[in-house]
This record gives sequence, structure tokens and C-alpha cells, in this order.
Amino acid sequence: MTAQPRTLRDQRVTLSHGGGGKAMRDLIEDVFTSVFAPPGMEDQARLSHPALTEPGAQLAMTTDSFVVSPVEFPGGDIGKIAVCGTVNDLAVGGARPLWLSASFIIEEGCEVALLRRIVASMAAEAAAAGVSIVTGDTKVVGRGAADTVFITTSGVGVIPPGRDLRAEAIQPGDVAIVNGVLGNHGAAILAARGDLALTTAIESDCQGLGHLMEAVITAAPDTRAARDATRGGLASALNEMAEAAGVTVELDETALPLHPEVKGMCEILGLDPLYLANEGALVVFVPEDQAEAALAAMRGTEAGRDAVIVGRAQAKGPVPVTMRTAFGGTRIVDMLIGDQLPRIC
Amino acid sequence: MTAQPRTLRDQRVTLSHGGGGKAMRDLIEDVFTSVFAPPGMEDQARLSHPALTEPGAQLAMTTDSFVVSPVEFPGGDIGKIAVCGTVNDLAVGGARPLWLSASFIIEEGCEVALLRRIVASMAAEAAAAGVSIVTGDTKVVGRGAADTVFITTSGVGVIPPGRDLRAEAIQPGDVAIVNGVLGNHGAAILAARGDLALTTAIESDCQGLGHLMEAVITAAPDTRAARDATRGGLASALNEMAEAAGVTVELDETALPLHPEVKGMCEILGLDPLYLANEGALVVFVPEDQAEAALAAMRGTEAGRDAVIVGRAQAKGPVPVTMRTAFGGTRIVDMLIGDQLPRIC
Repeated sequence: MTAQPRTLRDQRVTLSHGGGGKAMRDLIEDVFTSVFAPPGMEDQARLSHPALTEPGAQLAMTTDSFVVSPVEFPGGDIGKIAVCGTVNDLAVGGARPLWLSASFIIEEGCEVALLRRIVASMAAEAAAAGVSIVTGDTKVVGRGAADTVFITTSGVGVIPPGRDLRAEAIQPGDVAIVNGVLGNHGAAILAARGDLALTTAIESDCQGLGHLMEAVITAAPDTRAARDATRGGLASALNEMAEAAGVTVELDETALPLHPEVKGMCEILGLDPLYLANEGALVVFVPEDQAEAALAAMRGTEAGRDAVIVGRAQAKGPVPVTMRTAFGGTRIVDMLIGDQLPRIC
Repeated sequence: MTAQPRTLRDQRVTLSHGGGGKAMRDLIEDVFTSVFAPPGMEDQARLSHPALTEPGAQLAMTTDSFVVSPVEFPGGDIGKIAVCGTVNDLAVGGARPLWLSASFIIEEGCEVALLRRIVASMAAEAAAAGVSIVTGDTKVVGRGAADTVFITTSGVGVIPPGRDLRAEAIQPGDVAIVNGVLGNHGAAILAARGDLALTTAIESDCQGLGHLMEAVITAAPDTRAARDATRGGLASALNEMAEAAGVTVELDETALPLHPEVKGMCEILGLDPLYLANEGALVVFVPEDQAEAALAAMRGTEAGRDAVIVGRAQAKGPVPVTMRTAFGGTRIVDMLIGDQLPRIC
């Protein structure tokens, strides 16, 4: 994390920065490794952690590519998403996130200043989540062969002995808790694209969920499963979980936490907030007798201040997810078909 | 690795395959996870291996994005490179490769049949290297926002206790061994692009080097360091190693293993084979008294049949790398400046 003298004179990335020679080394050392890791790091990270050698501990590994457009938006940027997304994938599986890799595909002409902002954002988010970015790569492609910058992060963490969160463990009677407002990320990206001439104060919910997950599991040791509600929104996450568990989840529409502006935007545009993407929202299933403890623990964390119970697992019915509407009816909440909004993460 | 019934009817990838809904799930299950991993895998891989818990063992982690164009070429494809490149990064650092992640950024309109070929190629290469592809991701971007398909692989391996390969360990007198012909990958890509109207039989050297590295380390237990000579070629790899070690490496031009067609192509086009990219070539430094053993061990592996001694480390001189030419002179071998050939990996 020590700042290095800036040696790169170029304002924009050129193909020579991807060629494996001096220009590439300058770019990598000046923009990336001087922020992420001590100088002189090998291409390969060498890591050890006492938690990994505990008998019964498991190593968790996950990866995601990020192609969000625009790359900077209210509440975050592609770098913040890339760190939070991978940290969250580890966390919802019960792992303690330890290390990340970060690989960049950069379009020729991309501003070096933009890369610096993205890298700074990644470093800050990694520090907040308590993870280290330990290895990386950069590739440069010609103008028009990629859109500005794509980032792929992979994450490694450790699942403590005996911890086994999985959707299959959800049972009828279990309570579904969501940590905060739904749809803010998708709505923020939609507004940031400018096509709709909307002015809104909506910010992406992009945030790390590692500390929240640890708090929940400590307070509710029989926590069954968790899932971050990213692409496809809460509806798709719940459908996958319910199918895996062989239960039906019944949501309560009046309980769904929605920012008034997101609600308004959905009404105007005919969008369903259950399908809008999130980057800092998750759903956790806990046994009924641990629900209050889990809720209180979640509310005690920054990412869970607005946590609420949104529904309940029931014996398997004709469809995986239903919702009691505000008017007292019931409707099917299907998986997303097709694509509501491309490139939201 | 069990073949699943093909459920995906589309011939080409559309934006809806990236949306987080049913179409995405169909694509992932049909094209990717049915080949890579048993169905029903979680977003996160959960892994354990006895080697990881050995006292003193270290975990190795590496990542690379692949943007090679064209995506299929003589001797390989982007999938084969993505697996070999990451396996090799682990292997040259002394790690035994165990697990890979694979993340795909796909351009709208990409043929599903092409994806199937790439995935099959990755599965075959992973099996040959003895690694498992344990987790992955797919994103789809609009036409023109990426070029066909980009793949990012990350790798995790284990470095056995006491093993410590690093360039800093190279000492004057150490011998540099290369496993086979140089420049074939760069030359094959150049020819495959068709701009030069060249017809050649040159194939990429793309191959995994894990088994070779294990053989060398077993035969030459004091092996100092190894590096795969990818972007920037052997010249850039040697410059980095020599600088890190504080030595000067002297190459012997007459010893460099070159395919006659690559040599000819370089002469016609004014290219230097020392800077051409490789995807299956490495350089290893070993103490002089273990050089013969290392060479014999290397030649006993498929990837090292044509192994030769190419040079030697000496006390630090004015420049990191020099070469005794065929005519008895000496020339400086600098790092690559700029870009000899974009998107070769």
C-alpha cells in the first residue's frame, strides 16, 4: 500500500502496454502493484494462513468477471464491484475471505487516470473487507475489441471446520431475512446510463458482506444458507435456493425493503424490483427460533442496518417461490427469463 | 466430465444468456458445468487436499486473462492456452497445480459450437495436467463490446514444504536450460492471422509444464528458479530474472533451439525469435553440478524432449543479458520495448 513514485508518463493505455516488455512493466508497477502489493512480487502469490491447516477446514474458491457499463456510477465503480462481488460470493458460502486475484482487460485508449481511480477503489474495498489482492494480470486489446476495462477477480477463503451452509439445508419453517433495500444497484446503473433522462439520488448498494455474514453465523449458528442477490435479483436467487432445497418460499410483498425512488422508477418503467440486480444485498435462511438473533446481529452491522424478515420456507408447493401481495392475493415469482438489463455487473 | 443431454437450442449467444435468469442457467449447465464439474455445484468451490495441511506447505495463487486472436489457431485455441498458461505459472514457481477457475466474457453472437470446442479443449488440457476446473462465471456483452470470447483463469496449487524457487536465488555459474523450440507460438499466431499470406506448418507450442517441472526439481533438488517465456519471449523473461538475481546471463546463439520455419520467418520479417511469445517454453536455472541431471530429466518428459543448455549466469556486468553470436561477437539482449505482436495470449 506504499505509494510509489509515478513513472508512467502516458495519459492513455496503448497496445505497447500489453506487450510483455518495458512499457507493460511500467504500467503494472506504477498503476497496479504499487497500490496492491509490495514491489518485487512474483507472478505467483505464495500464501499461508493458520486457518487453512485446521483439521476439517476447507478452502473456498470463486471467480467472477465484471463488465459493468458505465464503469463509474453513483455509489461505486467496476473496481469496487469486482472486490465486493467476489468477497460476497465467498462470504455467503460461509467462507472467510482471505485473498483475491485481479485481472484486467483494458481497451487501447483507456485513460490511465481512470485506471488509477479504479485501482484505488479496489484497494480501499479490499482493506475494508480484510482481504489482500495478491496477484494479477493485465492485457491490452485494440480499440473496439473491449469496452474500456473488464476486471476478473478470483477469491480464496477458508471455511472453518463444521460450517456447512448450503441451499439444500433449508427446511419448511425457516425464515428468510434480507439485509437491506432491494434493486438499488440495477436502478443506479439504469439511471447512470442516461438514456432515460432521469435524475435520481439512487446509489448502488455495492458493499462487502463478509463482516455481516460472520455476525449472522455467530448469532445464529444453525444458519442454513445465504445467497447474494446479484444478476437476476432476489427472485432468481430465491428460485435457485428453493429448487435446491425442495421447498416453496413465500414472500410478503409488504415486507420487501424498497427505496422510495426505486419503487417509483419501477412503477414508471414497468420494472419489477425483485429482478433488479443488487451488489450488496443478500438473503439468509435461518431456523425460526434463531431468526430474532440473526436479525439483531445483522442490524448491528453497517451492511445490515435495514435488515428485515421477508418470507418463509414452506412445504414444497406447485412453484418454488410465491408472494403474498399487498392486496391479499398470491402471485408466482418466477425466475428471470431473458435479460432485464445487460451489463449491470 | 459426464456428457449431459444438450438442452440449449440457440446457435449463438445472445444478451439474454448473460442476464442471470433461465437462459443463463441453460447456457452454463449445458455448455460449461456439464463438462467441467458435476451438476449442482455451488457458485463457490469447496476444496480440500492433504498437501495443503502439511506443515510448511504454502498455497500458490495466480491469474491470467486470455485475449488471443484468432481464438483457434494451429496447435491450440484460447481454452487450451488459458489452462496451460495458468498451470505453467503455478509450476514454474514450484507449485503443484491443483485447481483452476475459469471466467468467460462472451460477445453477443458468439457461436455456441465454438464455445463447446473451447470448453472441450480446456477439459482435455486440465485432465492432462491433473488439475480440476472447480468454479467459473460467464458474462455476455453486446456485439462490438468484446472480441468473440475472453477467458480468465486463476489457479491454486500447493508449494511443498522447503521448496523455494525464486529468481533471486540464481548465482554466477548457474546453467540456463530451455525445454524446447522458441517462438513457435508467436509465429503460429502471426501466420494464422492471414495478413502475411504465409503458408507454414508451424504450430503453437502451447502445452502444460507441470509434469516437466516436477521431474526437474526431483532430479535437480537445488533448482534455483524457472520462468515461462510467454509475452516478451525468452529475452524478457531472462532480463527480469537476471535483474532480480543481480547477475548477467550470457546466452549462446548457436545453442538456441529454433524450428527452421520460425528461423526463416524471422529472417524474412525482421523479427527476433528471442522476443516471440511462447506458451509451452520455459527457462530453468540450476547449479552447474546438477545441470546434466536436470537436462536428462527434462528430456525424459514430453514437453522437454528438445531441452538444451542455452547459457549461463555470470557475475553482474553492465547489462542483464548478453549473447555470444554465431560469428563470435557479443550483443546486448534488452527487454522488449513496446509491442512486437498484440494479443498473442
